[in-house]
Amino acid sequence: MHRSWTLQTRPGARMPQVDDFELQSAPVMSGVGEGEVLIRNLYLSLDPYMRWRLNDAKSYAPPVGIGEVMVGATIGEVMESGHSDFMPGDHVVAPGGWQSHARLSGAHLRRIDAGKLPLSVFLGVLGSPGFTAWAGLRHIGKPVAGETVVVGAATGPVGAMVGQLAQVAGCRTVAICGGPEKVRLARKTLGFDAAIDHRDPAFATLLALECPCGIDVYFENIGGKVLEAARPLLNDFARIPVCGLVSQYNAPGETVDLAPFMQDILVKRLTWKGFIVTDFQSDFPTFLSEVTPLVEAGTVRFVEDIREGLELAPQALIDVLQGNNRGKMVLSLG
Amino acid sequence: MHRSWTLQTRPGARMPQVDDFELQSAPVMSGVGEGEVLIRNLYLSLDPYMRWRLNDAKSYAPPVGIGEVMVGATIGEVMESGHSDFMPGDHVVAPGGWQSHARLSGAHLRRIDAGKLPLSVFLGVLGSPGFTAWAGLRHIGKPVAGETVVVGAATGPVGAMVGQLAQVAGCRTVAICGGPEKVRLARKTLGFDAAIDHRDPAFATLLALECPCGIDVYFENIGGKVLEAARPLLNDFARIPVCGLVSQYNAPGETVDLAPFMQDILVKRLTWKGFIVTDFQSDFPTFLSEVTPLVEAGTVRFVEDIREGLELAPQALIDVLQGNNRGKMVLSLG
Repeated sequence: MHRSWTLQTRPGARMPQVDDFELQSAPVMSGVGEGEVLIRNLYLSLDPYMRWRLNDAKSYAPPVGIGEVMVGATIGEVMESGHSDFMPGDHVVAPGGWQSHARLSGAHLRRIDAGKLPLSVFLGVLGSPGFTAWAGLRHIGKPVAGETVVVGAATGPVGAMVGQLAQVAGCRTVAICGGPEKVRLARKTLGFDAAIDHRDPAFATLLALECPCGIDVYFENIGGKVLEAARPLLNDFARIPVCGLVSQYNAPGETVDLAPFMQDILVKRLTWKGFIVTDFQSDFPTFLSEVTPLVEAGTVRFVEDIREGLELAPQALIDVLQGNNRGKMVLSLG
Repeated sequence: MHRSWTLQTRPGARMPQVDDFELQSAPVMSGVGEGEVLIRNLYLSLDPYMRWRLNDAKSYAPPVGIGEVMVGATIGEVMESGHSDFMPGDHVVAPGGWQSHARLSGAHLRRIDAGKLPLSVFLGVLGSPGFTAWAGLRHIGKPVAGETVVVGAATGPVGAMVGQLAQVAGCRTVAICGGPEKVRLARKTLGFDAAIDHRDPAFATLLALECPCGIDVYFENIGGKVLEAARPLLNDFARIPVCGLVSQYNAPGETVDLAPFMQDILVKRLTWKGFIVTDFQSDFPTFLSEVTPLVEAGTVRFVEDIREGLELAPQALIDVLQGNNRGKMVLSLG
């Protein structure tokens, strides 16, 4: 059977719930047109950006339509190919969506060879999250040895890569995480110099203590109170790559006043710059050539939260949005 | 006599008033040490940044001490020189302060030759305000022909230069001004394509109407409600050089929520970058060589609000902060 999750209800400002989605079944597709490829999805990536696609609001990508299959990156195995670049049995990275099979233009696929690494790395450390971290540091953060780099959601796939690339660059790295287990993971497995639980009532004080020389790069992917705590610690000429605001994807929290931020931008000559990874797509080969050896050598580690079965997709996304994942969330559809 | 204005009272959050300052008299200085120069101040520049120096708060420059002479840029005539680069009668740009005479290290002076232009241009269009505009556009705004550039305080010396340099670059230019007289000045004298009075109740609507293709460069030197009106009009990849927040130098206004700004930074991939002109000091000769011919040819016009007498200095600063100046505020100390 071809199984797929479609969007039924836009959650608006609340947290999405499982019955916003519907699991549908249909006969398996067969046959491909000229240039098309039919794949079986092996792994599905669940990522915070998906939250944006649930609502009908202006963003950098169109929303998912009601009744349409949810979007998402997958690792697929080619079943049938009408495109000369792909043969049955090939492994590809694809915009395969929340479904068991997908028929796609070959132009949207990239063949991969994982070598000794698991296939799923191409959804994480060597996929969009890893590339997001690399591009944000390369083009905006520009960390220099001896500087302090702070990153939120630090055990997530973007944050983990930011921290480890900053360590390679010779920076002091400070992780912000949700909960003691993630704090341990950031320190022990990912090698951060310090890790702080943002749920700790003394969070702002702890952050200041762990940044005795201030913050030179604040890699923003949380927003809200974490951002508020980091702001007073920013050094002159600090850089703030803005690649996500996961705390604000759902219900808005307390209002934070813009005025002190604007004053700091001026007085400290800060750079705040938003980006999405597709802005830097032409750098992807450079990223792969630089980072693949680091991953293969174990210099850059990765943590995956792999769960079994397409039926878990909505809950897995909710867990990502609530921080109930331990590393990169991937569903194995095997 | 040597006359000087000293700071007596820090205004805190309120608008400064004349009796925050005291006019003092003393015998004229004489004699210079090795490397020193004694000057008579001919012109004193009054600028918004001075507001920051009145309070004892962290900023990019130390505050003026209580009882100390107020800081400020001047055009001076050399009276006595202990420095081989300067001779009596030379004209110089100097950090001469709110006083009739100053004894300074020659290292802080720059000799000028105004040619056919008035000496005061070196405090405005060919001085720090003009250079601020040039550097903010060159390094951050990066206007491209056909783009829309919006600038606040558009008849002030920074805003007027931003608009005219953007016109030279082939951009649509929109001025934001306070009051109908300044709107006329922006349109007729400074050549903006459109000019809008921020005091107009329909201001946000008018701004949107004058930016039918959105805003690509928003040169920020006001803050507050002007910023709020501009934000929704910013295009993807818009650049926001932040060089001043004159609306927020005094009593804080209403709270503006940070959240939509952060969301726009991300979704529209905006660049917000603060700067002060001294960050780009090494470019000053390039600025002069590029812009002096434009000023001499009349391509770039300048408007000066020249008043007579050192005794007017505190009120002149207050007028700058309240927008009661017509162009660059300069005191002639002749």
